[in-house]
Amino acid sequence: MKKFLLLALVFSLAALQSSEGQIRYVQASDFTLVGHAVNRPSGNPYHRIDTARFSLPSGVEKQYLCPAGLAVAFRTNSPQITARWSTTPRSLYANMTPIAQRGLDLYIRRDGEWVWAGVGTPSENTHEAVVVQKMDSSWKECLLYLPLFAELTSLEIGIDEGFSAVPMDDPFRHRVVIYGSSIAHGASGSRSGMAYPARLSRSSGIHFINLGCSGNGKMQREMWDVLVESKPDMLILDCMPNPSAKEIAERTVPFVHYLRDRLPGVPIVLIQTTGRETVNFNHYFANMEAEKRAAAREAARILKEEKVPDFYFIDGEDFLGLDHLGTCDGTHPNDLGFDRMINKIAPKIFKILSRYGIR
Amino acid sequence: MKKFLLLALVFSLAALQSSEGQIRYVQASDFTLVGHAVNRPSGNPYHRIDTARFSLPSGVEKQYLCPAGLAVAFRTNSPQITARWSTTPRSLYANMTPIAQRGLDLYIRRDGEWVWAGVGTPSENTHEAVVVQKMDSSWKECLLYLPLFAELTSLEIGIDEGFSAVPMDDPFRHRVVIYGSSIAHGASGSRSGMAYPARLSRSSGIHFINLGCSGNGKMQREMWDVLVESKPDMLILDCMPNPSAKEIAERTVPFVHYLRDRLPGVPIVLIQTTGRETVNFNHYFANMEAEKRAAAREAARILKEEKVPDFYFIDGEDFLGLDHLGTCDGTHPNDLGFDRMINKIAPKIFKILSRYGIR
Repeated sequence: MKKFLLLALVFSLAALQSSEGQIRYVQASDFTLVGHAVNRPSGNPYHRIDTARFSLPSGVEKQYLCPAGLAVAFRTNSPQITARWSTTPRSLYANMTPIAQRGLDLYIRRDGEWVWAGVGTPSENTHEAVVVQKMDSSWKECLLYLPLFAELTSLEIGIDEGFSAVPMDDPFRHRVVIYGSSIAHGASGSRSGMAYPARLSRSSGIHFINLGCSGNGKMQREMWDVLVESKPDMLILDCMPNPSAKEIAERTVPFVHYLRDRLPGVPIVLIQTTGRETVNFNHYFANMEAEKRAAAREAARILKEEKVPDFYFIDGEDFLGLDHLGTCDGTHPNDLGFDRMINKIAPKIFKILSRYGIR
Repeated sequence: MKKFLLLALVFSLAALQSSEGQIRYVQASDFTLVGHAVNRPSGNPYHRIDTARFSLPSGVEKQYLCPAGLAVAFRTNSPQITARWSTTPRSLYANMTPIAQRGLDLYIRRDGEWVWAGVGTPSENTHEAVVVQKMDSSWKECLLYLPLFAELTSLEIGIDEGFSAVPMDDPFRHRVVIYGSSIAHGASGSRSGMAYPARLSRSSGIHFINLGCSGNGKMQREMWDVLVESKPDMLILDCMPNPSAKEIAERTVPFVHYLRDRLPGVPIVLIQTTGRETVNFNHYFANMEAEKRAAAREAARILKEEKVPDFYFIDGEDFLGLDHLGTCDGTHPNDLGFDRMINKIAPKIFKILSRYGIR
């Protein structure tokens, strides 16, 4: 790991030296932060939610300290954008790139489209990198996605001396809150902007807010307040992957009932658990996943039978394709799997949104 | 990194304990090793080529010590497959998963199709993992891909006591040798079996041999002997990403001439450099890549004009798509980019192969 650190530092410093002039650093928190589910936290602004305001299970809290889905929005005419940032020490996962886990991911709007511009390559816990350089000096709208799986404790954005950077309005409209598992959280996209909520936001302009909660998206009672206070225009429950079949059977109906009561008129969309490749030969996993799938289907059936208003269920077994190429590790979609998942579920989501005038 | 190690070990040991009985380990080198470009090396059998036989630049040699594209072929009726392996200490790259860099990737043939079965999750330098378990005890054909970016120094495959594992015939026919850059090498696929040569082999049954040479696929003179001795039925030169425009202009024509002379009748296919996203805003990279692309096109034009027999050029700028989602870091395809690249180039490759009766 020390070698990884050294390699990244050498790369970063070499790149920084190659710049033509001095770099001026600005606190990223002085710019616009987009993607918070509730308010911007009073403490660390890069937490997804203000965990002090809610009493959350520790596993949930840990995931919401990570800024998955948060992005810094700013405008600049600087030919170069660099970054210095720090993350709390945390194990690297084997099924994700360090860039996705601890790195930064920059998009610049060109002709109305968000075009990928550069990544901030991470080191160990403190990081310094050129994100993009040698651009023209026209004013540009920038969206810098923050790490998926590390708590961000500081972030400064560097621009060339003599150029400017200013906050930008949130480029997204409406609020579609996605509560889910590691999959909604972003594992195993290759960089933070490839998480499916981020991709949906950039392609549609509608804000898909990431409340994916790796390993802990289990419809715990403590999530009720968070989801209600997120004031969604639509609530997507992509949280079938983490709970057991028993938990799905016990929790889904009351979870939806509670949210239905507190969020009248807001469409609630339950998404079936993503098909896993871990079931291909392992009969234990195959049974377990089939039971979860059946439990989700049964919960949806009950809610439909009860005629719970504005409730929708997106069922399906092949969100990631059927050729066994859509995951990194059998469970977590790679970028190919996410692309297929978006192609399957997005048309259904946008169709429902349009019924509510959300476009 | 120590934490990463601990996490992986806890996971592995928990999984191993959950198995129902004792595990018996077999040296993987006692099984069939598929994917060597020349012969199986007399020393470490997991080197891609016997580096002692060739005088290679150190950067090239380092990459060919990694078993990218090599796989262990065996048959077993064991309900569980585990592995113990060691890799030489090497920095983790930020743009790849540890699973792809140091891990294992297992496929099992079912109804004629290679179906993903499990990964071996790596630790630091010595690794132990359950790859798949709780299978039925029918005999299965297994193909276990080795790490992309680490030298493998030992590998034992574990099966349940009371069951058997035996070598399997190489499941692939013919020899299409792909000489290239980090992209052919496999970066940034999410696991080793997602490298495009491996995907082409599994889907077609034709053997695409991986001589991708990360950062060092520059048509050096020292590669001549390796490529001639690889005795290809087709030679694919996907080596435009690494050399500069000047190197492409100087080296491509003599490189092809030499190989044409030594490999009469063997189709040689030059592939245009993959479009990079690093050019989106960086005008220096944009110029550099445009020059490389033009140099490759000019070299192909010269070779065509000379009527070099059995020479083909696959040109194109959009192998990875035009939506800026096909790479991890602007240069290296993610699994989505590889999927698109395969969809673009594979039909052309198979069309050429069929002209030579290679099916």
